[in-house]
Amino acid sequence: MQERLARQIEFLVEADKLKSVSRRTPLVDGSRRENSAEHSWHLVLVVMVMREYGAAGVDWMRVIEMVAVHDLVEIDAGDVSAYDEPAFAAKEVREKAAADRVFGLLPADQQARFRQLWDEFEAQATAEARFANAVDRLQPLMQNAHAGGGSWCGQALARAQILRRMAPIESSLPDVWPHVLDVVESFCAAGVLRRD
Amino acid sequence: MQERLARQIEFLVEADKLKSVSRRTPLVDGSRRENSAEHSWHLVLVVMVMREYGAAGVDWMRVIEMVAVHDLVEIDAGDVSAYDEPAFAAKEVREKAAADRVFGLLPADQQARFRQLWDEFEAQATAEARFANAVDRLQPLMQNAHAGGGSWCGQALARAQILRRMAPIESSLPDVWPHVLDVVESFCAAGVLRRD
Repeated sequence: MQERLARQIEFLVEADKLKSVSRRTPLVDGSRRENSAEHSWHLVLVVMVMREYGAAGVDWMRVIEMVAVHDLVEIDAGDVSAYDEPAFAAKEVREKAAADRVFGLLPADQQARFRQLWDEFEAQATAEARFANAVDRLQPLMQNAHAGGGSWCGQALARAQILRRMAPIESSLPDVWPHVLDVVESFCAAGVLRRD
Repeated sequence: MQERLARQIEFLVEADKLKSVSRRTPLVDGSRRENSAEHSWHLVLVVMVMREYGAAGVDWMRVIEMVAVHDLVEIDAGDVSAYDEPAFAAKEVREKAAADRVFGLLPADQQARFRQLWDEFEAQATAEARFANAVDRLQPLMQNAHAGGGSWCGQALARAQILRRMAPIESSLPDVWPHVLDVVESFCAAGVLRRD
C-alpha cells in the first residue's frame, strides 16, 4: 500500500478511539453517558438545523469540519468537565500534545489542514469558530433539558455558572438565547440549579 | 418558545436515539459494537480525509451532509445486516415510513431539505450520493480489517459477497480499490472469508 494511503487509514482507525471517550452528558433516555464521537455527530446535525440563527456570510462547511474534529484531542487528553476548574485549566497543555500526535498521523498537508481547523476552534477568533463553540454548548443544554437535568444534577451548580458557560449561544445564535434562559429558569424552579 | 425553534429542537432531541441503534461492526478494540451515530461521525471524517480519491467537481459539503443524515431512518427501522438478504429486501418500506416521521418533525422547508438529502443518497444517481455510499462501505471495512475480521467473523461469508458489497469503492475511490482487494485477500488467507 502506498505510504500516503497507509497514513490516512492509520489516522481514521485511530479516530475510532473517540467512541470510547465518555462525556458528562447522558443520553436523553438516561441509559448511559454520551461519548465524544456521537456528540461530534450530533453537533454536525445541530449546525445543519440551526445555521439560520447564525450571522450572514459564515462558511458552514468550515463550521461542520470544525465540530467534526474539535474533540479528537480527547483520544489522549480525555473529556474534562467545564465546571471542574483546576482540571479545566490544565487541559490546554495536554490537548496541544494530543493534537501534535493525533493529527501527526496524517500526511503533512492534511496534518496542517486538520490542525488549522482545531487551532481555529480553540482561538475563537472567527465567526465560524464561535458558532461551532456555541453549538458545542447548545447540544448538551438541549440534551440535559430533556433528560431531567442530566449532567447538571447533583453538582450544586449555580445559575450564573451555567449562563457564563452558555454565553457563546447569546452572541452566535441570539434568537435562541431566550430559550436558553427559559430552560435554565425552569431548572432553577425545580431546584436542580441554584439561583445564585 | 416560537413554533419553528420548538420543532427544530424536537428533531434534534429525537436524533439522540440514533446513539442507541447498534450496528454489526465492532469498535477496533472489540469492546462493543459501534452505534449508528458514531458511525455517521466517522463517515464525515472519512469524507474529509479521503475526498482526494474522488472525482473532480464533487460538492463535498453535500456529501458530508448526506452521510450525517443517511442513517437517521434507523431510529425507527433499525440497522439490518447487508448480508441478511430477506431482511435487507424488506427494509425499504420501513425506512420510507421512518423518513416521513423523523424528517417530518422539522419545519416544512427543512423537512424537504433533509428528505432530499436522504432520497438522493438512496437513489445513488449523483456523484455525491455514490461517494457517500462508498465511504459507508469503506469505513466498516477499515474497522473490520483492524479488529481481526470484526463483523465478518463466524458468518461464512464468501469473497464474492464482500467484493460485491464493496464495489462502490472501486468506482468512487478507484485508487483505494487495490487496498480493499489486499484486505479481502488477507482475510481469505486467514480463513475468515471463504474463497468462493
